This record gives sequence, C-alpha cells and structure tokens, in this order.
Amino acid sequence: MTPQPARRNEQSRRAILAAALELLTETGYPALTVEAIAARAGVGKQTIYRWWRGKGAVILDALADDMPEVIALPDTGDLRADLRQVLRATVAEFADPRLSATTRAITIETLADEDLAGQARDRLLRPQLNAVRVRLEAAREAGQVRPDAALDQVVELLFGPLYHRWLLRNGPLTDDYADGIVDLVVAAVSPSTSARG
Amino acid sequence: MTPQPARRNEQSRRAILAAALELLTETGYPALTVEAIAARAGVGKQTIYRWWRGKGAVILDALADDMPEVIALPDTGDLRADLRQVLRATVAEFADPRLSATTRAITIETLADEDLAGQARDRLLRPQLNAVRVRLEAAREAGQVRPDAALDQVVELLFGPLYHRWLLRNGPLTDDYADGIVDLVVAAVSPSTSARG
Repeated sequence: MTPQPARRNEQSRRAILAAALELLTETGYPALTVEAIAARAGVGKQTIYRWWRGKGAVILDALADDMPEVIALPDTGDLRADLRQVLRATVAEFADPRLSATTRAITIETLADEDLAGQARDRLLRPQLNAVRVRLEAAREAGQVRPDAALDQVVELLFGPLYHRWLLRNGPLTDDYADGIVDLVVAAVSPSTSARG
Repeated sequence: MTPQPARRNEQSRRAILAAALELLTETGYPALTVEAIAARAGVGKQTIYRWWRGKGAVILDALADDMPEVIALPDTGDLRADLRQVLRATVAEFADPRLSATTRAITIETLADEDLAGQARDRLLRPQLNAVRVRLEAAREAGQVRPDAALDQVVELLFGPLYHRWLLRNGPLTDDYADGIVDLVVAAVSPSTSARG
C-alpha cells in the first residue's frame, strides 16, 4: 500500500475545521486559539500553520465550508413577505448575543486584513447577496419589480441599513425595523414608480 | 496671581488634539503613536494617558472637536439633487486612499471597543445622520416625501449601502452608484407610492 497523503490531508483538514467550529461555539472567538483547535483536532499546531495564517483564516474557511452549496430564498410569489422573512432572519442572527459577538469579532479581524476580507466577501457575503438577487430577478419576471431597477443596488439597499445599524450600534434591530426597510425597498422598486419620477 | 490649571489644561488639550490631527495626516493612523503626539504637543506622555485611554480615543476626540457645530445640508428645494450632492461627497471621501485608510483604521479600532464605539456614534455619526434627517423633514413639509415615511430608516437607507459596499469591499464606489441609491430612495419615499402599496 502506498500512503495516501492527499486523503490524509483532507481528513486532517476536515478535523481541523470541525474542531474550529466546535470551539467557536464553546468558547467564543476572542478566547479561541490555534493551539486549542490543534489539540481538539488531534494534529500538531504546525499542521494548521502550514495551511492557514491564523485562527481568523481557519474560522473563515470553516464557515465557508459550512455554508449550503445553494442558498435559495423562499418564493411564495409574495415579494414583500419573502423579503421580510429573510430580513427578520438576519435581525435574529444579529440579536443572538453569542452569534452577534462572533460575527463582530470575525468582521473586525477580516476588515483589518485585505486578503481575509476578499475571502469573506467572495465565499460568505456574495453567495448570500446573490440569493436575494435571484429572488428579485424572479419578482422582476413576475412584473413586481421595475424592469430598470439596478438589482445589485437593491440588494444592498436591503442589507446595508441592517448592517450599518448593527455594526455602528446605531439603534435597536427589531422585526419592525426589518419590516420597515422591506416596505421602503418594495416601494422603491415598485413598477408604479419611476426612479426618475 | 494664582495658577490657572483649568486654562492650562485646556491649552494642553487643544495642543494635543491639534498635534494628533497633524500627525494623522502626515503618518497615517497605523504609524501614529501616543509618544509622537506628546512630543509634537510639547507635553509628557503621561498627560495624554491621564485624559485618554490611547491613540484611538485621542483621535476620536480630535475628529469630534473638528466637526462643525451645525451641519446643514444644501436645500435647493430639489431633494434628489441635494441628496446626490451629499452621497457623492461621501463617495469622494471613501475614494480618497489616505482618508479611506484612516477612516477604516479608526472604524476597526472603535468596533472592537464598546466605549469608543458609543462615542463615535454619538459625536461623529449621529450629527451627520441627523443633518440628513432635517433635510428630509423639510422635503416632507414641502410634500416631496410621504407623510408616513420613517425618516430614521430613510437616512440609513441612504448611507447603509455605501457603508456596506465600502467596508466589505463589495464593489466600486462611484458617483453613478451614489446617484442610483438616491434615485431608489427618492422613489421609496415618493408621495405617489405607498409603503404598503
């Protein structure tokens, strides 16, 4: 039997990512260390540093691996109801103290590191924004969205305010807030208005 | 003559804040040190640490002191044109590499520190958001904005997308982008649509 380094590597990689997510839940991000991830995964610290630059890169990889391959939004035919569901789910994530603290810590770490920021954008952020874009395209097909609406901007019009309010702690994030943003955005893209109206 | 410690303190404080802003422009935020600020201001390092916790707190104080007492938006009577001017100015700030790097570094530092975050929100962010709210109130008086529009949310609808795109490096920030956001927001608040339409 020849050794199978590729398979062994993949097993180690999976063990490391699983250990990182477990420890993230148990200890939170600030207390997380590469040493603890290595011990839990049963590998040496140097194995982790061979593949990743630090705990931020490991967690980002773990979160990206953990994402569903295809993110699909509900499509009940009612754009307002479907968007409310999505934005309320985002508000619930931000309202969970542990999840919020973790997301904030990881956000801060990625913001300070251009390479991590690019990975977070491409592997975590874009798939989620794109799923909303796909739902808006369906609504446009169905005549519920103006044909000339710039959908990438509409997606950011939905998430930008929540993100701004959460990150800058500028006010409470509630279901009412999420619903209000959706109502404004639905009005903005309504076929009965013109952007230049 | 009795000594006037209050006045001496105020002079030192002003010298420190002025030195901090000068050095910020000259060296950028990451290379800025409390030692350099103290040297430039002609005070001891311990004087700075008596009043501030670190360079982040000094810079935040300096930027807040440097803000105009009253921020007023242009009011030409044309809401779309006035908002475009404001959002294009924000885009220009984000597009300036040095200013953008400084703002990013300070943002990261304040995000990680709840006390600094509260100060940044109350002294830097809110006065600017409020100025836009005042302009929207005038537009509502003039019948250009639906009476039931939630103006605090409308303000975040303007700035949230720009902030999201800038901080997460999710795409280019251009005048066209700013104009597109304004057009969507003007449509969202237009009296000819209803939020529940």
